[in-house]
Amino acid sequence: MQQDSGSAREALVGLIPADLDDDAVLDRRARGVWSALCEPGDGDAGTLVAAVGAAEALRLVIADDARAVAAVVDGDPGRTREALDRWRPRLQPGAVAAAFDTARRAGVRLVVPGDDVWPTRVDDLGAHAPLCLWVRGAMPGRVGAAVAIVGARAATSYGEHVAMELAADLAGDGIRIISGAAYGIDGAAHRAALAAGGATDALLAGGVDRAYPSGHEDLLRRVARTGAVMSEVACGAAPTKWRFLARNRLIAAMADATVVVEAGWRSGSLNTAGHAAALGRALGAVPGPVTSPSSAGCHRLLRDYDARCITSAADVRELLGATEEVLPGAEDWVDEMTALRDALSTRVWRAVDDVARRCGQSIGDVERGLGLLLLEGRAQHGPGGWRLIAARR
Amino acid sequence: MQQDSGSAREALVGLIPADLDDDAVLDRRARGVWSALCEPGDGDAGTLVAAVGAAEALRLVIADDARAVAAVVDGDPGRTREALDRWRPRLQPGAVAAAFDTARRAGVRLVVPGDDVWPTRVDDLGAHAPLCLWVRGAMPGRVGAAVAIVGARAATSYGEHVAMELAADLAGDGIRIISGAAYGIDGAAHRAALAAGGATDALLAGGVDRAYPSGHEDLLRRVARTGAVMSEVACGAAPTKWRFLARNRLIAAMADATVVVEAGWRSGSLNTAGHAAALGRALGAVPGPVTSPSSAGCHRLLRDYDARCITSAADVRELLGATEEVLPGAEDWVDEMTALRDALSTRVWRAVDDVARRCGQSIGDVERGLGLLLLEGRAQHGPGGWRLIAARR
Repeated sequence: MQQDSGSAREALVGLIPADLDDDAVLDRRARGVWSALCEPGDGDAGTLVAAVGAAEALRLVIADDARAVAAVVDGDPGRTREALDRWRPRLQPGAVAAAFDTARRAGVRLVVPGDDVWPTRVDDLGAHAPLCLWVRGAMPGRVGAAVAIVGARAATSYGEHVAMELAADLAGDGIRIISGAAYGIDGAAHRAALAAGGATDALLAGGVDRAYPSGHEDLLRRVARTGAVMSEVACGAAPTKWRFLARNRLIAAMADATVVVEAGWRSGSLNTAGHAAALGRALGAVPGPVTSPSSAGCHRLLRDYDARCITSAADVRELLGATEEVLPGAEDWVDEMTALRDALSTRVWRAVDDVARRCGQSIGDVERGLGLLLLEGRAQHGPGGWRLIAARR
Repeated sequence: MQQDSGSAREALVGLIPADLDDDAVLDRRARGVWSALCEPGDGDAGTLVAAVGAAEALRLVIADDARAVAAVVDGDPGRTREALDRWRPRLQPGAVAAAFDTARRAGVRLVVPGDDVWPTRVDDLGAHAPLCLWVRGAMPGRVGAAVAIVGARAATSYGEHVAMELAADLAGDGIRIISGAAYGIDGAAHRAALAAGGATDALLAGGVDRAYPSGHEDLLRRVARTGAVMSEVACGAAPTKWRFLARNRLIAAMADATVVVEAGWRSGSLNTAGHAAALGRALGAVPGPVTSPSSAGCHRLLRDYDARCITSAADVRELLGATEEVLPGAEDWVDEMTALRDALSTRVWRAVDDVARRCGQSIGDVERGLGLLLLEGRAQHGPGGWRLIAARR
């Protein structure tokens, strides 16, 4: 799969013309290529692009120049080598060109940092911010208040009812509703926002050229009529498990507050909630019967993660007023989480102090991080300490 | 109604023999008389009894000696006069004797501070602690962990189900279940505790010689077989609105933690919750559907009063572990609340700083107190500030 750097460079000429003298266009094209090379939230890519710009960063990858990359990011040569080995197999000019073609045919726009419509809220993600966004529909300009309404796919009629009430009320009031277009709570939130004549955006885990889930093809078409259907991965990319988790961080980052309406004990929306908390965004959870497994995750957020108890749209408005500043160092958070994961084993149980020593973080930071991993279903806690759950990307 | 002090004294001789030389018996009898003279939680009575003992305090009341009373409690003469005017109309020897007779016939015991079975937890109420308790059944000795499970009379089957699950699980584990014997949640908690073979106590607002509500006559008989049915008012006393509110403070004080299972927006169980919080007792609330008015009070406790979200008996056990020390000055709290109420008007709206000036408390204390009054439905908040809701004792 390894490309010869000379031929790859040549083949990419059509995408990144060597004589292009408009830096902005060059940057835009290069970011589009990057979205096909790396997985969303890849901090190494973010750091490299931030250091030398997307086009020069791409040139270094094509040249397979690990030493130069390590030098500009002031990084560990071994880690740089790993990063290049991650990206270079995807340096497939044909595939990248196909993604661009698909986007053009499907009327998908590429939006990059610096564009008027770039959602600057996502910059809070630091090195893990998206390098670009592929957008179907009407990308909003300056966005006022925005609320993420998320929850379980396996929602009950109670959950869908509450999601619709909240979304309709808030959207009718000019508050943008952000969600993930999944069945259940997400779909109910989008639909109610549209019905109320409000604005709603959908963040997808795969390419926006394909409706996912396919049963929401019509709903996504309606979202794109007045709002945006967005993804940070290129057209044609499949929605993998990892991309869902990464997509969740975008939902949290795009909104001032995240409200989880219904969630099982290990629902993916708890992952969104964890990101919202880590970003210092306000977090709310709607309670439900304690006898309903579909509300167990919400009660967990209320009990253990200090989420605010949401019973009405008025509570959400109050939550918006309580939005905190982004936690200092939130942009370092994902790096710390990576270091924390590296300090855990999938086989051996490790005590918190052992983990803290291995990753060079304080006991308090490690405990907080482990709590988030637990919430995301990526770590387990047992009598012997903590263990990583093997990833299924 | 005013009694001639000489004849009243003479008539009370049968109850408080002048030649009784056993101080303990004298104190016990005098406290019993006091329970017929004053309303529960009367801080002036508590202060006077604490200063000179129940018997001497009673002698001063019979003598109508306002000056002597004001001197021993270091109090305001006007306030002392008012207190005597409150108590003396009830100096009806016949009525007091009848209350004692009823107690004897009904097998109701009088329990006073210093008795082995005196529930010392209630001493946290300071001057507002009960002067005695009238008890039907088996007063427990040293009580281990105790949890109050309370809630709306108009409970749903969901609420009753959860109350029974919690009470059965905890009572089966040796944790004492305290409640108020009302229909709905209270009754479900008592019944489940009994069914689990556990111990449960009922606190009544009126005299324990009468079952209230009458439909719970059999339930109260069953509670009294292994636990205690208690009240601080004498036999024959009716359960008035004020006595329900005062009874609620006993429920909160008797337990290490209070759990509200279902409560409407202005349920009386929020009053119990407010007392638990003021006493530094752990407070939990069971969430329910946000569409259910029967859970609105619980959500209010979760949202605004930092109650812990309770979904299972395990959560209650955790709550018990989190029991805080009694807040310093909790015994002054009811006095401060009285001063605060005095500083409010039922007609004129007053701003917080105005109220603070009038009652001589800090803005922070006033805001906290107003929050409790609001929770208890005794104050209103409007654009013009705060207003007292006229009492309907």
